Amino acid sequence: MRLAVIGVGLIGGSFALALKQAGKVSHVVGVGRNRANLDLARERRIIDAIAPDAATAARDADVVLVAAPVAQFAAIFGALAATLKPGTVVTDAGSTKRDVVAAARAALGAKLGQFVPAHPIAGAEKSGAAAASAELFRDRRVVLTPLKENAAAATSKVRALWEACGAHVTRLEPEEHDAVLAAVSHLPHVLAYALVHDIAERANAEQLFSYAAGGFRDFTRIASSHPEMWRDICIANRDLLLGELKRYQAQLGLVETLLHASDARALEKLFAQAREARDRWLKSSS
Amino acid sequence: MRLAVIGVGLIGGSFALALKQAGKVSHVVGVGRNRANLDLARERRIIDAIAPDAATAARDADVVLVAAPVAQFAAIFGALAATLKPGTVVTDAGSTKRDVVAAARAALGAKLGQFVPAHPIAGAEKSGAAAASAELFRDRRVVLTPLKENAAAATSKVRALWEACGAHVTRLEPEEHDAVLAAVSHLPHVLAYALVHDIAERANAEQLFSYAAGGFRDFTRIASSHPEMWRDICIANRDLLLGELKRYQAQLGLVETLLHASDARALEKLFAQAREARDRWLKSSS
Repeated sequence: MRLAVIGVGLIGGSFALALKQAGKVSHVVGVGRNRANLDLARERRIIDAIAPDAATAARDADVVLVAAPVAQFAAIFGALAATLKPGTVVTDAGSTKRDVVAAARAALGAKLGQFVPAHPIAGAEKSGAAAASAELFRDRRVVLTPLKENAAAATSKVRALWEACGAHVTRLEPEEHDAVLAAVSHLPHVLAYALVHDIAERANAEQLFSYAAGGFRDFTRIASSHPEMWRDICIANRDLLLGELKRYQAQLGLVETLLHASDARALEKLFAQAREARDRWLKSSS
Repeated sequence: MRLAVIGVGLIGGSFALALKQAGKVSHVVGVGRNRANLDLARERRIIDAIAPDAATAARDADVVLVAAPVAQFAAIFGALAATLKPGTVVTDAGSTKRDVVAAARAALGAKLGQFVPAHPIAGAEKSGAAAASAELFRDRRVVLTPLKENAAAATSKVRALWEACGAHVTRLEPEEHDAVLAAVSHLPHVLAYALVHDIAERANAEQLFSYAAGGFRDFTRIASSHPEMWRDICIANRDLLLGELKRYQAQLGLVETLLHASDARALEKLFAQAREARDRWLKSSS
C-alpha cells in the first residue's frame, strides 16, 4: 500500500511511522513547504520519497493523509481533485471538521465520497517531522465525521488505518465535533497563549517568569504549540470558540464576584467541585 | 535540633523529611486537624510524635514551621506567642506574605523578631502527608520576606534550613512577593479551576471530558490542588488577584477582537510571541 502524506509534521509523520510499523504501508511519499523538514523526514525513514506537490503525490497513492494547517485544505483538495484514482481513499488530521468538510465539498466534486474526515485527538507542543513517533496515536481517540457520500468500504478502510495506528475510533457529526473540541481543546489553548502573552509583555516579565514554577509550566505547555496551526483552528472554529470564550468569561465573572464578596465558602465549593470533576475524569480515563 | 511542624501536609511533611535526611533535625513533633493524616505521618517517620496543639508543640522546639492554610495563621501565631522560647525560630510556608506578616505582627508581640516569613515555591496537586517527599524543595525557589525586627542570626538560620532542603533562597518584600505570585501562580490556579468548573456543570460534561486529551490534562493539573488552601490564598491576596483577573480578561478581550475580525495575522503573532516567551523561559530555567 502506497501512502501520500501532505504535511509531514508531528501528525503526518507519526501516521506514516505507525502504519509502517504496523506493516500496513510499504511506501510513503511526502509533500511539504519546508525542504529541511522533508529531508529530515526522509533521513528518519518517515517518508521514502518527496513529491513536489499534492497532485503529484496523490497520483499513485492508495491512501492520502492531509495533515497541514486547516487553512490550506481548500488548495490541497483542489490539487487532489485532479489526480485522485477511483480506488484511493483520503483522510485528514484537521482539528476542525465543519470547515474541512466544506472545503472538501467545494473542491472534490465526484470524488467527495473518497474523503473520510478524521481528527486524531493526539497532539503535543512539539511540531515537525523531528517530533513524529509511531506511538503518538496509541490509545488516543480518533474522531471520524463520515459524509453521507462515503461508501461503507471507504469509511471502513480509513477506520482500519487509524486503528492500525493504535487509536480508538469514534464518530461524531462535524458540528458536534467542533463544539466539543472548542470547549476542551481550542479554548484551553487560547487561555494558555493569552496568559503567557499577558505576562511576556510586562516590564517585569523576566522577574515574573523567574518565579514561575511547575504549575505554570504545565498550565502553559500548550502555549508552546504551533502558532500557525492554532491560528487556523481558531479562525476556522471562531464562532464556537467565541461562544466558549464568552461562557468562560462569565465563569471568571462569578469568581470575581466571590472574591469581591470575600465569599470563602462559595469559593472553596467551586474549587472542590472542579477538583472532584477532574479527579473523576482522570479515574475514568485511566 | 527539635522541629515542630504545624500542618503536616505535602509542604510541612516534606520540610521534615528533607531536614531529617540532611541530618539537621533529630526529632519532629507534628500538629494537625486530621488524626489519620498525623498517624500516617508517624508511620512514614515524617514525625516522631503528635502534639495536641501548636502551643504544646512549640514549647520544646528549636524550629517551628507553620504550614497550614493561611487563614489559620492568626490563631496559630496566637498559640505560639504563649510558649515560644527566646532561641526558637519560626518560619512558614504560606503562599501569601502580606497577610501572614500582618497576622504575625498582630499576635507575636515581642517575639515577632523570631519569625522569618518564607514561601517555598514548590507545590503539587497532591496533598497530605502521603504526598510528602524529602526531594520536594530540591532546586526549587524559596522566597524569604524578612521583617525589620528579624535579627540577622534568625534570618541566617531560617535560610540555612531551607537551603538544607536543597532550595535556592531569594528575598522579596511581602508586597512584591504577593504581586509576583498573583500573576504566575494564583491567577493560573483560578483559571484552571474555572475551566474545569465550567465544563463540569454542563449537561454534556461527560461527553466533553471524554474528548479531553493531554493538553487539557496538563492545563488543568493545578485544578486538582487543595481547595481550602487555594480558597485561603485567593481571599488573602484578593486585591492583587482581582487586578490580575481584570488584566487577563482584557487580554481575552483582545483575542476576541482578533477572532471577530478574523485577523489571522495578528492572532498568529500573539501565539508566536507567547510560544517564544515560554520557550525562552524554559531554556533559561533549565
